[in-house]
Amino acid sequence: MPAAYRRFPLPMTYCLAIRVNEGLVFAADTRTSAGVDDVRTYPKLHTFEFPGTAAFVLLSAGNLATTQAVLAAIKRDDEERGAPLALSRMRHLYDAAEYVGQLSLRAQKQVAAESQHSGVDFRTTLILGGQIRGEEPGLYLIYPEGNCIATSPDSPYFQIGESKYGKPILDRIVRPETRLNDAARCALVSLDSTMRSNVSVGPPLDLAMLPAGAFAIAHKLRLDVDTPFYARLRESWARSLEAGIRQLPRFEWEAADAPSASQQV
Amino acid sequence: MPAAYRRFPLPMTYCLAIRVNEGLVFAADTRTSAGVDDVRTYPKLHTFEFPGTAAFVLLSAGNLATTQAVLAAIKRDDEERGAPLALSRMRHLYDAAEYVGQLSLRAQKQVAAESQHSGVDFRTTLILGGQIRGEEPGLYLIYPEGNCIATSPDSPYFQIGESKYGKPILDRIVRPETRLNDAARCALVSLDSTMRSNVSVGPPLDLAMLPAGAFAIAHKLRLDVDTPFYARLRESWARSLEAGIRQLPRFEWEAADAPSASQQV
Repeated sequence: MPAAYRRFPLPMTYCLAIRVNEGLVFAADTRTSAGVDDVRTYPKLHTFEFPGTAAFVLLSAGNLATTQAVLAAIKRDDEERGAPLALSRMRHLYDAAEYVGQLSLRAQKQVAAESQHSGVDFRTTLILGGQIRGEEPGLYLIYPEGNCIATSPDSPYFQIGESKYGKPILDRIVRPETRLNDAARCALVSLDSTMRSNVSVGPPLDLAMLPAGAFAIAHKLRLDVDTPFYARLRESWARSLEAGIRQLPRFEWEAADAPSASQQV
Repeated sequence: MPAAYRRFPLPMTYCLAIRVNEGLVFAADTRTSAGVDDVRTYPKLHTFEFPGTAAFVLLSAGNLATTQAVLAAIKRDDEERGAPLALSRMRHLYDAAEYVGQLSLRAQKQVAAESQHSGVDFRTTLILGGQIRGEEPGLYLIYPEGNCIATSPDSPYFQIGESKYGKPILDRIVRPETRLNDAARCALVSLDSTMRSNVSVGPPLDLAMLPAGAFAIAHKLRLDVDTPFYARLRESWARSLEAGIRQLPRFEWEAADAPSASQQV
């Protein structure tokens, strides 16, 4: 088992965030399960906007109670003027990621201390992205241990949870110069492929887009399988893949007039 | 960690086999590693032909010594006329799968008994496919425990090793009525996607095709990254995926004349 896989305790979710030159894209499924007989829908994409100053999106994969404790702490710190740290007062996105990492660590430790022998995994893995006035947009992957890493131009995206099924299309398509809308479509395709192969990742999907310099969530969508746009996207992608297979070069033993022949030469 | 994942001890390989009405396709990478500093090339696709009577292909993922012990036992049994069981004398593919499962179990047990505390994983997961005169072609997944399962029309393929990256394209494309050559191209695309996302799966690739009723391997290819056919296939697929992303429907906020616009309506 690769160590990288073990870091993500509960692969029953799939969230991803992409950083391109034009801004940030965030996408997540909404399926939460405490076993195959206890499946619910919870948002894993959370937005925090401070208009004109900063905007953040937090994605979560892991223990739901830990995630909710982190969200509650962020909200409380922002409402209490006396709090030493608050998302609304961060000057640097790195500081915000460190702050959220510490909240996560604290939430995990509190509950773990009280239930040492429960065998429950209280960890959560987070992605924090956003932009603070004076800085470029950025993305951080926050490990259950509280530490974090940023994207790089060579690795312009992060995935948490069940990441393997949806990774090849990101590796092939996403570059810093990819258009923001194309990156969003690619994120939806990545989620769609994952949902087809893993029942623990399920609709509806949440999508949020944060254009560079907007300091606000420009678009936030919830897409279900019967949402017309998402249905058309799935249909279009399925047709493109089928056409792509048909257009692959023929083996040398295939006659030019074979019934399965494509137009490819 | 899903239990299904744990069954495959060493995900540093990727093999797949597809059963369509026209016959069987087998494909495998050739990378073997005993750690990132000990990477070699070994075939994982093994063919056994008994012209006019039967043909088999065996794919392996797991401990290399166990796999080689199984291969040696198959060969020995076929050469020794006194052996109680031999691949060449099997009347049913299910019996062949059971036989190979027992050889695998025996190979694992022998070595495990002598090295109980080594911590080494001696398991191997196998796919046996083929056709014996008088029967349809078939595929069996042989677990390290020696038991096996067959494909069904709803699940017409098996994967062993690092299966997740290359699964979505199989789920979307492969049906019993898929043409044999198309299934082979799809298998190569599945391998290509896996190699891009996991360095432990690497070229060259082996491909074998067994048309129904041929009782022989019709085509056996070794494809490296610079093999012209494989290079053209990779290029064609990459272009199709890029075009597929461009052709996805636009979000409602995208103006008809936006620079990133596609031809899609």
